Amino acid sequence: GKTCTIADYLLERLVQLKVTEIFGVPGDFNLGFLDYIESSSKLEWAGNCNELNAAYAADGYARVKEGSLGVLVTTFGVGELSATNGIAGAFSERVPVLHIVGVPSTAQQKSKPMLHHTLGDGRYDAYLKAAEQFAISTASLQDKSTAPAEIDRLITECVVTARPVYLMLPTDLVHEQISSKRLLTPLNVEPPENDPEIENFVLDEIVKLIEEADRDVVLLVDACAIRHNVKKEVFEFAERTHFPVYSAPMGKTAIPEDYDRYGGIYVGTISRPEIKEKVESAKLLLSIGGLKSDFNTGNFTYQIPTTRTIELHSDHTRIRFAAYHGIGMKRLLPKLTHRMQPFREDAKALTVPKFTLPVPQEDNETISHLWLWPRVGQFFKKGDVIVAETGTSSFGILDVPLPGGSVFVSQILWGSIGWTVGSTLGAAIAARDIGLNRVILFVGDGSIQLTVQELSTMMRTGVKPIIFLLNNSGYTIERYLHGEKARYNDIINWEWTKLLETMGGVEGETCQSYTVRTKSELSALLDDAAFARADKIQLVEMMMPMHDAPRALKVQAELSGKMNKYVSVGVKTASDTL
Amino acid sequence: GKTCTIADYLLERLVQLKVTEIFGVPGDFNLGFLDYIESSSKLEWAGNCNELNAAYAADGYARVKEGSLGVLVTTFGVGELSATNGIAGAFSERVPVLHIVGVPSTAQQKSKPMLHHTLGDGRYDAYLKAAEQFAISTASLQDKSTAPAEIDRLITECVVTARPVYLMLPTDLVHEQISSKRLLTPLNVEPPENDPEIENFVLDEIVKLIEEADRDVVLLVDACAIRHNVKKEVFEFAERTHFPVYSAPMGKTAIPEDYDRYGGIYVGTISRPEIKEKVESAKLLLSIGGLKSDFNTGNFTYQIPTTRTIELHSDHTRIRFAAYHGIGMKRLLPKLTHRMQPFREDAKALTVPKFTLPVPQEDNETISHLWLWPRVGQFFKKGDVIVAETGTSSFGILDVPLPGGSVFVSQILWGSIGWTVGSTLGAAIAARDIGLNRVILFVGDGSIQLTVQELSTMMRTGVKPIIFLLNNSGYTIERYLHGEKARYNDIINWEWTKLLETMGGVEGETCQSYTVRTKSELSALLDDAAFARADKIQLVEMMMPMHDAPRALKVQAELSGKMNKYVSVGVKTASDTL
Ligand SMILES: Cc1ncc(C[n+]2csc(CCOP(=O)(O)OP(=O)(O)O)c2C)c(N)n1
Ligand SMILES: Cc1ncc(C[n+]2csc(CCOP(=O)(O)OP(=O)(O)O)c2C)c(N)n1
Ligand SMILES: [Mg+2]
Ligand SMILES: [Mg+2]
Repeated sequence: GKTCTIADYLLERLVQLKVTEIFGVPGDFNLGFLDYIESSSKLEWAGNCNELNAAYAADGYARVKEGSLGVLVTTFGVGELSATNGIAGAFSERVPVLHIVGVPSTAQQKSKPMLHHTLGDGRYDAYLKAAEQFAISTASLQDKSTAPAEIDRLITECVVTARPVYLMLPTDLVHEQISSKRLLTPLNVEPPENDPEIENFVLDEIVKLIEEADRDVVLLVDACAIRHNVKKEVFEFAERTHFPVYSAPMGKTAIPEDYDRYGGIYVGTISRPEIKEKVESAKLLLSIGGLKSDFNTGNFTYQIPTTRTIELHSDHTRIRFAAYHGIGMKRLLPKLTHRMQPFREDAKALTVPKFTLPVPQEDNETISHLWLWPRVGQFFKKGDVIVAETGTSSFGILDVPLPGGSVFVSQILWGSIGWTVGSTLGAAIAARDIGLNRVILFVGDGSIQLTVQELSTMMRTGVKPIIFLLNNSGYTIERYLHGEKARYNDIINWEWTKLLETMGGVEGETCQSYTVRTKSELSALLDDAAFARADKIQLVEMMMPMHDAPRALKVQAELSGKMNKYVSVGVKTASDTL
Repeated sequence: GKTCTIADYLLERLVQLKVTEIFGVPGDFNLGFLDYIESSSKLEWAGNCNELNAAYAADGYARVKEGSLGVLVTTFGVGELSATNGIAGAFSERVPVLHIVGVPSTAQQKSKPMLHHTLGDGRYDAYLKAAEQFAISTASLQDKSTAPAEIDRLITECVVTARPVYLMLPTDLVHEQISSKRLLTPLNVEPPENDPEIENFVLDEIVKLIEEADRDVVLLVDACAIRHNVKKEVFEFAERTHFPVYSAPMGKTAIPEDYDRYGGIYVGTISRPEIKEKVESAKLLLSIGGLKSDFNTGNFTYQIPTTRTIELHSDHTRIRFAAYHGIGMKRLLPKLTHRMQPFREDAKALTVPKFTLPVPQEDNETISHLWLWPRVGQFFKKGDVIVAETGTSSFGILDVPLPGGSVFVSQILWGSIGWTVGSTLGAAIAARDIGLNRVILFVGDGSIQLTVQELSTMMRTGVKPIIFLLNNSGYTIERYLHGEKARYNDIINWEWTKLLETMGGVEGETCQSYTVRTKSELSALLDDAAFARADKIQLVEMMMPMHDAPRALKVQAELSGKMNKYVSVGVKTASDTL
């Protein structure tokens, strides 16, 4: 039969899953493999500045390219361990990322010489052991005969569970010839069928509860609805029933935010009052893909009793107190929709507060959070990808209704700052691939310092995001949590508008930078058609007050402050109360 | 009795060990602890741009500040995992770094809520498990009664073993009051005494072999002589015996390179021929603190039979084939020196090739490696700290004799690129502390891109290194290993001379940047007294050919190429042979 190398086999599997770009950094244990990427006509090598940023990019790519996965290639030890936080974030936030690590040859792994990039004590399995903490599955290829099955298993698990996997690829195996026969059968990355008997039982139960609730049902869509690719199924269900739909922060844009039965973001006590009232007073809450983390639930302040709750998850279903393991929503939802009587007319009784955010009148020119977010809300267009960094941005964006077909990207559970810079790169490449519109990033001056070099890779790969940089003189979110005036929350102010040209752009040609100090300046820029066209990479430094934050952050900070014990230290903490 | 908080206890222990600076990034789980650092009059908070760079800085600090340790503070999950590679590098290269992680309260660790920065699956021990792979010891503080003993144990192990340790500090325990009584007794961080009976036996054996060898003995000093603080002991031994001394790459500057009995760098077949000949023909080799990694040994090409070798290590001794566990060099060496008859006169028979590197005459203006290294060699001064990044730099610097009292800093075993940028920050702060001279960094254009933001922290902390940036259009070291013309070895060229001013400097005032394209330009700069004074941070972009490398790298690349199998891929690899 026909043969191919293990490298080709692996890459072909990725191509079959519509991967177009691979992220990472070269190193002598992966150079052999990189040759295959470089010679592939279907795959591009991003060539990131460092491995953490590359992991972030793979994560961002996977989020936007639904149904596909992100791929990261690093080198043994130094490379892979630089990416640990990025991979752990993908694990936490359920993002399918394949981490391929170029490792010493199978012979070296047996003889264990003290190679560079080793710990110097002969342990060749330490990195794998660490990686196991942050991967849903791992494989250390040792034998060409089992390699293709191992690769298939790993990629399948990655996509089906929406979690990172870790693959050790030894320098010698890269080039080994294996049968390519398995490639004729594409991988099945659909979730498994539900057990029909249990599934039917579950459907009956759900339908019964919905009827008992007199169809006073509210849908709450969350992160896993996006990650497990049921946006379409959820929307069909919503359209058929006309039940009001709300979203958790991590589920933002799972349902188009301009949908007329969509009411906005529910986040426990942090919700806008009218939303809180509507969600919590429904007779039944149907939660889809819920991920109840602190920042995603207003510090665990949902006021909805379990007796009024149904939860659909990727691999199980909960009806009140009962768990049905193995009953996943991707298969369940279409059947549930099918069972529903169309309810369009009656549903009108269940009013949905319109999700809007008017631009307030403020009689000063300061760019305040209160004004900023609704104002940029008017700038967004259909199909934009909107990325918000942890900090004032991720809280500020929540209240902004995003246009239909837009995609919201944030890291609300993991919350690693700097992540958006890498992630925007990956998201932008994916967006270009699948024909989305502009990619628009909101990032703090503190956060961008962690990963700033990836601006360079943006220019290398030719993507053209718009980067709104909130210059508020440091770690404002932290000042709200603790240390309002502490020096550790200060940062060095950079010449932000010089960054792009310093890192490879030609100002005015391939890149453009702006500073805006007033509402009028920002408004004028947003109204400028050339700016809005986003035909080069653009960075907008926005001067903002150090001590200003969006409403949701102020409330969250109060709630968190109560949890973390920041006892007074000398004279300091007097000034630390908000 | 008197009490203090756990935070104060911990910090006081660090102050006792002469720590002056703490590296890291704030996060809500460590803010409470940072208050104590900020209010300490003896400790400074560096405020790094990201955690990997901070770990690198702690490592660099520890290397220069012998007998002390580096300290890193990060936050739960996102922060600590960003530092993994930095800590693993410290483990590999034997550098004492204390990694303090601000973690959720002891109550939260029990109830395990889905907090931000968690993996979302209730595992609160995953980061610890990963950290265990790269720490010689760990502690998860849970109880104030055991906290001080745990802290003492951890710090002691860190310094004694010269390896990183990991400390989980929960938000609530930070402020708990404990007895401060233990603080009256400083920690004993000296290595334990050797068993006198075995030690005597070992001394007899060594003396016998030295005599049998007719005192034709050569000393080879390596990494662990520096890390385990026996430079003084080694020098006293050398002075008394007048045995010729050589150094492995990782032991460079363990012995002053201007010492008249010092012969240069021995690195197996990669050594200069006269050095190789001298070392390998000695009747007995006394290796001190050896760390036989690939790049440190010319790919394992030592030609010295075990029957002619004695190895002194921090915690054991090897005499030919016999291992003596528990017999450490710090205690052994002074006794050995004491046993030696002064040998000054006879020793003259054992000639030592003078370690010099004249500047060659080249009839062109290109800044070649052949010319560069001897030329900058003339620039170095007593007490300078010289840092060389993995790449052409770490190979080029080896052949340069460094002045007495200078300190060489490199990462030859771990070899994580970008490390020097963080490391230089830490090294410079340590150098300032202990009154060393200038800090001079050689870094590649590829490497600096990984960690460039730490230039900003250099300016924040006011250190003034001289940064020589080798602009050779990408990953030259890799081109020598594989992929000479591959695009994956290209990088985006930056406006290097704009970096400092972009990241917080004022060009001409607080910082100064230069580009040099020719030998004459570089020479003129090196001869400029104002430049040499290094009274502001300076960056020198040196334009160099893409395909040029120091002698030692060329040889190493040939040796490595034989080990890693880079089989041809299509038409590519034809051009990949050197
Ligand atoms: C990798 C990582 N390190 C540290 C933190 C802790 N942290 C959370 S938010 C924040 C400050 C963010 O500052 P900035 O980006 O300026 O946001 P803003 O001022 O808009 O709040 C920090 C340091 C983190 N979340 N992730
Ligand atoms: C963190 C990390 N990622 C990747 C590598 C693999 N690597 C080793 S050297 C090198 C290139 C260094 O290039 P540069 O700094 O420009 O050095 P030069 O051109 O002087 O050789 C790379 C990518 C590494 N050692 N460490
Ligand atoms: Mg900020
Ligand atoms: Mg280079």
